[in-house]
Amino acid sequence: MRNFVFHNPTKVIFGRDTIAEIGRQTAVYGKNVLLVYGKGSIKRSHVYNQVVKSLAAASISITEHPGVRSNPVLNHVRRGIAVAKTNRVDAVIAVGGGSVMDTGKAIGAGALVEHDVWKFFIAKKSITKTLPVICVPTLAASGSEMNSAMVVTNVEKNQKFGFANRHLYPKVSILDPTATFSVPPDYTAYGAVDAISHLLEFYFTTRLPFSPVQDRLMEGLILSIMQNCEQVLLKPHDYNSRASLMWCASLALSGLTAAGLGKVGFPMHMIEHSLSALYDIPHGAGLSVIIPAWLRCQAEQEAVKLEQFSKRIFPKRQSICTDWVSYGIEQLTQWFVNIGCPVTLKDIEVETADIPLIAANALALGKIWRMPEYTQETIEAILRLST
Amino acid sequence: MRNFVFHNPTKVIFGRDTIAEIGRQTAVYGKNVLLVYGKGSIKRSHVYNQVVKSLAAASISITEHPGVRSNPVLNHVRRGIAVAKTNRVDAVIAVGGGSVMDTGKAIGAGALVEHDVWKFFIAKKSITKTLPVICVPTLAASGSEMNSAMVVTNVEKNQKFGFANRHLYPKVSILDPTATFSVPPDYTAYGAVDAISHLLEFYFTTRLPFSPVQDRLMEGLILSIMQNCEQVLLKPHDYNSRASLMWCASLALSGLTAAGLGKVGFPMHMIEHSLSALYDIPHGAGLSVIIPAWLRCQAEQEAVKLEQFSKRIFPKRQSICTDWVSYGIEQLTQWFVNIGCPVTLKDIEVETADIPLIAANALALGKIWRMPEYTQETIEAILRLST
Repeated sequence: MRNFVFHNPTKVIFGRDTIAEIGRQTAVYGKNVLLVYGKGSIKRSHVYNQVVKSLAAASISITEHPGVRSNPVLNHVRRGIAVAKTNRVDAVIAVGGGSVMDTGKAIGAGALVEHDVWKFFIAKKSITKTLPVICVPTLAASGSEMNSAMVVTNVEKNQKFGFANRHLYPKVSILDPTATFSVPPDYTAYGAVDAISHLLEFYFTTRLPFSPVQDRLMEGLILSIMQNCEQVLLKPHDYNSRASLMWCASLALSGLTAAGLGKVGFPMHMIEHSLSALYDIPHGAGLSVIIPAWLRCQAEQEAVKLEQFSKRIFPKRQSICTDWVSYGIEQLTQWFVNIGCPVTLKDIEVETADIPLIAANALALGKIWRMPEYTQETIEAILRLST
Repeated sequence: MRNFVFHNPTKVIFGRDTIAEIGRQTAVYGKNVLLVYGKGSIKRSHVYNQVVKSLAAASISITEHPGVRSNPVLNHVRRGIAVAKTNRVDAVIAVGGGSVMDTGKAIGAGALVEHDVWKFFIAKKSITKTLPVICVPTLAASGSEMNSAMVVTNVEKNQKFGFANRHLYPKVSILDPTATFSVPPDYTAYGAVDAISHLLEFYFTTRLPFSPVQDRLMEGLILSIMQNCEQVLLKPHDYNSRASLMWCASLALSGLTAAGLGKVGFPMHMIEHSLSALYDIPHGAGLSVIIPAWLRCQAEQEAVKLEQFSKRIFPKRQSICTDWVSYGIEQLTQWFVNIGCPVTLKDIEVETADIPLIAANALALGKIWRMPEYTQETIEAILRLST
């Protein structure tokens, strides 16, 4: 095991009717907040009403910054920072999916500096403090509610960049599974793929030959995500399955599963971010295309780990014609198909002729994330495996 | 899933040569500390030297309070509180096993109140603040280094009582697996049993019929503890196995595994505490006697959960003569035997004639812990299953 520091200070308040807590929790940090949200789904689902009512009861004044879109964009973050500065807010409340929470985090960090917030993303500046951020996730996916990461897209540069910094942990996150009841099947599935992808990145990119504890925790979460996602797709209002899916997604990228693994990479995210940046497709949909391709590419190099994965995640191998490695990749791919996710570039209407362009875009992020082992050629090769 | 708050604020610094960090970490909290430790094993293993050297380098003055014994006693805690008060220490540093850490926590809580510290344990007073506590565990067992619980024995009353309070999380815990290299085989095994017992208490006492995430996490930790304990007994200086065992023990009782399970009980601990209180046997040795008996007693009532446990922990059932429930209990018991742990009262030289006395003692703790379903008769019945 590698040395690590594990310190996740986020206070998670989980369960039914917990959103009513937000006023009391926020009051600890001030009386004047920026409320960040998306295109209005929280109004339709009444989550908005619950938040505003609780804040009002705690005499907290709200400045709104709505309109976050999926694959959140830098200019919208910049406008939020300007609003936060003008109104001298004490804290940022983000109510929505990963895009909203990441926008909230970026505003919280950008509001306390004079320079452009993008400098954080291109590693020109480092975060030393942020406004307190309080999250109310409405999607089980990114884990942003319990981690120190954020991702934003610079549309002008076609760059979807992300990074982690310990100041980016939300102070409080309120997870009410009923807030995810209205998430449609496609986004429910994309969310599950996103959560699984975080685990797969760690599972397969650690250079440790021996990580029994982390492996078991990750396998347990993957199995739980699969089981509960299936349940949720059958019964979208099944509280326990929604709750399990939500908690798994939070834990998957909370620092718990990667602790002790040493340096890990995010190659699948690196490539997917380019798909999202160039074609504005949902992150999870891009991932379900990239994951099988990346695993196929790694089949030889990661045979031992893939065999373990396959045996523990898909133990009921019927066929004697397939080896465990291929079987595991096939089964995972099939599972993506079963839950309605795309698994090829064609499925997301991306032309194979674009592969060099996508690879070139991914390379830029690979540089920031220091993944020199991924060249134009290797990325193109992976993308060709998804055609 | 039940509603829960998950907020574990302990900063865990994990790995080789991390003890040298203690000076810098402690300096945040003050310049005058109480150093709590046991009978001197930390001096033989050089952990003491590392701690003292690092504290000296950070210009931190130390008052020592050594002599904590296994099953730590109230009077020694009281003396520590007096020393802490007299010396107006800013923080408590606990270097040792669960007994030392719990003593450190009790001193940290008792030093800030005028009343006797025992009142916390009998629920007459509630903790509202404590001195900062910094832990350096030297045993993979209690998880005290990353949780909000403590246990102390009142020798006069033959009462070994414990409880949890959110102020009892250590501020920082430094986990260097090499500090456990010198733990002898018996205590290594007792530690593994202790860590497993925490998981079993949650696994089998939750009243939730559906806890897929928590079950998977707990099963993963149990499998890892078993695998790594076996490795450590073969090779006591195997860093990765010691590290895995240590991290599992910390996570087992960190709040992670019980989050969402609702009300859980500690019936096995309730009974074991009486064995420790009356006969001063190591906690883990008492647990390996009580666990099989308690599981046998629950075989019918918990058949579904026991079958799941058995299938996932001991999937290689050879015999077709045994049902999964009995098989799982047998295998776990046999595993305790394999790692050198006692599994009957006879093994720990406790007379069956004492059963009523032990049960009566356990009842007193059952009252404090509010477990009215355990009567003199039911506890005696469980104890008879361990003869």
